[in-house]
This record gives sequence, structure tokens and C-alpha cells, in this order.
Amino acid sequence: MNDVSPQRTVDPRFAQGAAYSQGRFVPMAEATISVLDFGFTRADSCYDVVHVKDGAFFRLPDHLARFAASMQKRRLAPPEDLAGMEAILHRVTWLTGLSDVYVAMVAIRGRPKPGLPRLIANCDNHFVAYALPWIDVLSPEIQARGGHLWIASIPRIPDASLDPTAKNYNWMDLNRGLMEAQDAGFDTTVLCDAEGLVTEGPGFNVFVVKGSTVSTSGHGVLQGITRKTVLELAPELGLTPRVGDITRAELEDADEVFLATTAGGVMPISRINTRITNNDSPGPISRRMKELYWAAHTRIQWRTPVRGDSIQE
Amino acid sequence: MNDVSPQRTVDPRFAQGAAYSQGRFVPMAEATISVLDFGFTRADSCYDVVHVKDGAFFRLPDHLARFAASMQKRRLAPPEDLAGMEAILHRVTWLTGLSDVYVAMVAIRGRPKPGLPRLIANCDNHFVAYALPWIDVLSPEIQARGGHLWIASIPRIPDASLDPTAKNYNWMDLNRGLMEAQDAGFDTTVLCDAEGLVTEGPGFNVFVVKGSTVSTSGHGVLQGITRKTVLELAPELGLTPRVGDITRAELEDADEVFLATTAGGVMPISRINTRITNNDSPGPISRRMKELYWAAHTRIQWRTPVRGDSIQE
Repeated sequence: MNDVSPQRTVDPRFAQGAAYSQGRFVPMAEATISVLDFGFTRADSCYDVVHVKDGAFFRLPDHLARFAASMQKRRLAPPEDLAGMEAILHRVTWLTGLSDVYVAMVAIRGRPKPGLPRLIANCDNHFVAYALPWIDVLSPEIQARGGHLWIASIPRIPDASLDPTAKNYNWMDLNRGLMEAQDAGFDTTVLCDAEGLVTEGPGFNVFVVKGSTVSTSGHGVLQGITRKTVLELAPELGLTPRVGDITRAELEDADEVFLATTAGGVMPISRINTRITNNDSPGPISRRMKELYWAAHTRIQWRTPVRGDSIQE
Repeated sequence: MNDVSPQRTVDPRFAQGAAYSQGRFVPMAEATISVLDFGFTRADSCYDVVHVKDGAFFRLPDHLARFAASMQKRRLAPPEDLAGMEAILHRVTWLTGLSDVYVAMVAIRGRPKPGLPRLIANCDNHFVAYALPWIDVLSPEIQARGGHLWIASIPRIPDASLDPTAKNYNWMDLNRGLMEAQDAGFDTTVLCDAEGLVTEGPGFNVFVVKGSTVSTSGHGVLQGITRKTVLELAPELGLTPRVGDITRAELEDADEVFLATTAGGVMPISRINTRITNNDSPGPISRRMKELYWAAHTRIQWRTPVRGDSIQE
């Protein structure tokens, strides 16, 4: 049952987004955390983002499974179980009345509970979720002309120090790369590791097309759901998917480059630093992959329609 | 003028701490940030902590100068100028009515301002400050017996990816090390870099005593104010201060180890992993340094008495 329809009357307080915070459903502006929360003062939390397109979540079980794995890796255990979290995601989405939605779930460390030793294990972990009007990492206009990608001088934080597969907010290296990119007039950035191998950018994986092979990095990156989808769809376009090392030189010498993210999908790139590709426009394989990715949103096995009755109040 | 006295009537709403947030002075529980703030979702902020002992800030100009440098490095520019921030620190401290206080200042990225391109430079940076009852990184009981220090298996994030001199909340490597330490029953942790050189721990610098030399790391660390104080005081105890590389082996083989932090001062260590030093108690040089550090709090050039009239309401 899909309750998200233009006919339904939506509470205007949720027009700019609906959230679940401190156990309550609230307008977006009321979703806050204490400045003392370790989620803020130690960036100690994990999160996931899933999108809703035409009234249905895309690959929701994959996102929930990854979120559960992130929580386990970071030993975060809010009181809500995974089924409860899923019901909350439906509810915050439904409250917005929107059919194309950016939906985030966050497990946050909290603070040591009063009266207990000040140990990480003694914190009151809590769960926040929210639904916002659709967000694109790169605007539709930029996606249409092809994004301009800056290769950052800042090396990606090594996996040994920070596990990128447990999706987290420790973004300082990405922030610094993005600042460099914006200073140079570019749209976004990709970071290489200390060995010069391509990793990821702020909120997306990177794909390199060479001949009929589409490659993406195997380390230093989040195991993106859009990335996974691209790898699964590639054979349908006669392409060979490959996960493995990509050198900076291979990125610069690619036939085409595109980005993959939940918040924007498959996003073609037309410039990589000073190099202009495909006559300064999205390449043919990137275009076809972008089309196929959005077309695949109708596949029943990847759709979970938003329910309005997930939580009875 | 020192308005902090037991005679003054203190608003009970500030008994657990006073804060400045969104331009207003509020009880601690009301100091929150949006879950959408880049300060949370990208750990994009910088901070500093200064302590008040017996009604006076300790080395406040040094903390303010470092905070200004951190803000400049991260290009954070809240509307308050540095003099305004200083007045706010006085005010939040004064509101608590306490004479021994933990005082934090934070510059936070905020969110892109409405109607402007979604660039880092277009965010509404904001300033938060708060004063809390005294906090020790290690409790007085632990300091008395000597802290138990775990050498983490997690390598410190390299300086090239994350500048540790711009004091920040990207703590994931420190969090992971601290979790290892607490799992093993230790009080806290120190991280080495990928080359096996000692860096710092969660919220403190590390000093190694060998003969009459006290050494602390020169890279991978915050330039701590307590660290600076220890280096300046060392000659008064006939010790030679040294800033430079410390190998893990040198840490394990030290005569004594102590930690240096604003939130606790000089904190002696009695165990380093399985090694027990000084008969399982604080060593003589660590004890003397701790005594001298606290005694130095009466030195007029390092004291800034808390003012109650810093801001007229």
C-alpha cells in the first residue's frame, strides 16, 4: 500500500522535512543533539542514507543491512531494533507527503549514563532518522553538463585508522579536498590514498570507464549501494564490471568517469582537473548507465513502497 | 575583579553548566545543534578548552590565540569576534557560580545559507561556548595511583590527512584506540603513527622521562597549552625539555610517563601495557611536575580572573 499521494493532507510543519529524535516524531528544525553528545564532540556515530523515488524506497534491505553492519562495527546499539528503525523510516517519509525523498538514519553515541563510569560502553546510544525533500550531491544542471572533478592534494585517511565501510561523519579529509575543489571552481573532489590510488569523494564512489570495462576502487571506500547497483547492471550494457586498484594516472586517462551515490544516482563527469573528456559533456556509457539506473527503479525486487501505517500513534 | 564567590546567588538552571548557543545564554541542556549541521554530519568544526582554577582562567590568551589559529586553518568565521568570544567565556563561567570550571569554545560550520550555492564558503558558521563543573580526563583517584596507558593497535591518522594542530572532533582513530584500552581494562590510550612513533591520546599529549630529559612528540599532535607549560617549567626542576620523535620502544622503556591536558593537568602513568613502572605508582619526576604545574596557577602572568561584568544584559 502506498499512502504517499498528492491527495493526502500533509501537516505543514513537515513540509521542510520530518524527523524522529529522542523517541518522538518532530519537524526537522526540532531534530537536534546536545553539543556535549559524543556524536558531536568525538564524531562517534554511524549513518546511512536511502532514497525514495516515486513513493518507494530503493534497495531498502541493502541499506538496512549495511547500517546494521556499521552499528555493529562501531558497537552502537540504540534501543530501537532494526524492524523498529525500518518502521520509523517509513513514518518520517510518509509525514513529508513527498514521493521523492532523501532519508537518513543515524546511530549516535550519546553521553555516559549518570552514575556509571565514563566509559564508551556506558553511553546512552540513540537513534535519529529524518526525511528531506530530494537532495542531489551534484545539481541536475551540473549532472546534465557533466560534473567537474578535482583530484585533491589531501590524501585519504588510511583504512587502518578509519574504516570507511562503517559509514561515518569523520569527514575532515573529504572536507579539505572539497574546499580545494571549490576554491579552484570545481564541483566536487576525489581523494587518492598515500600510494596514489583512487579512493572516493565526499558522499560518492568513483567509476572509471576504459574500453568496455567499468572499474571502481576496492579499498578506502564505502561499499556503496549505488556502486553495487552499477556493478550488477553493467553486464546488461555489455560492460565488464571490475573492483580493484585504480591509479591516479588511470583516472586521468579514463575514457569516461562517473560518480555513484544514493543522493543523485549515476552522475557523469566531463572534466577531471585540467582534462576535458567527451567534448566537455557526459560520455555515452555514463549516459546509458544513468538511464538504466533510473529505469531499474521500477524493478519490483528493489522497491519497498512507503507505508503510512508503519507506526500506530 | 573576581565576581565568582560563594556568596553570590546563582540561577539553579545553570548549576549543571551554562552555555552560549544561537546568540543566547542558556542552560546546558538547551545548547544543541541541528542534526543537519555540517558540524555534525561532516565533523566540520574546531574547538578549544580552557580551565578555570580558583576563579581565574589559566593561560586564556594562549587558548584564544590557538582557537583563532584553528578557526583560520579551517576557515571558520562565526559572527562574534575574538574579544566578543572572550567576553562570552567569562559570562558562561560566571553564570555557573563555580570557581573550578571546564570551559569550551566551538566554531561550527553550520549549513549553506538559503538561496546561495551549496558551498562550504556559504555556510552560516556559528559559535557555541559552555562552562561545566570541572572535568578530569582521568579521575583524581586514577591520577593518585597512576593511570594505566594502553598503546593502541590503531595507527594515528596522518597529519597530511588531518591537521592535529587545528583542534577538532574527528576522533575516530582515538575512539577506536580508547575502546581497545577500555576492553583491556586500561584507563586510556596513546596512538602511534604508521612509522611506530608516539603521537597523542584522546585529549592529551604524552611525556616520556628518561634520566633528566622530558620529551614529547613534535608531530601528529595538538600543540597543547599544558604541554607548553610543562616544557617551560621543566628547567625549574632541573630537567631538559625536548620536542621530537619518540619511538614506541622509548615509550615502553621510559623511566616515567605522564600525560598533559587542560582537563586534568599533569597526570602520572604507572602502567604502560604490561609494563609496570615506579613500583606501580606515579614516578618522582611526574609527581614534582604535577605539583609545580598546579602551584604555577598562582603566577599572575598566567591568570585571568573571571569577570561578571563582561557582558551587560
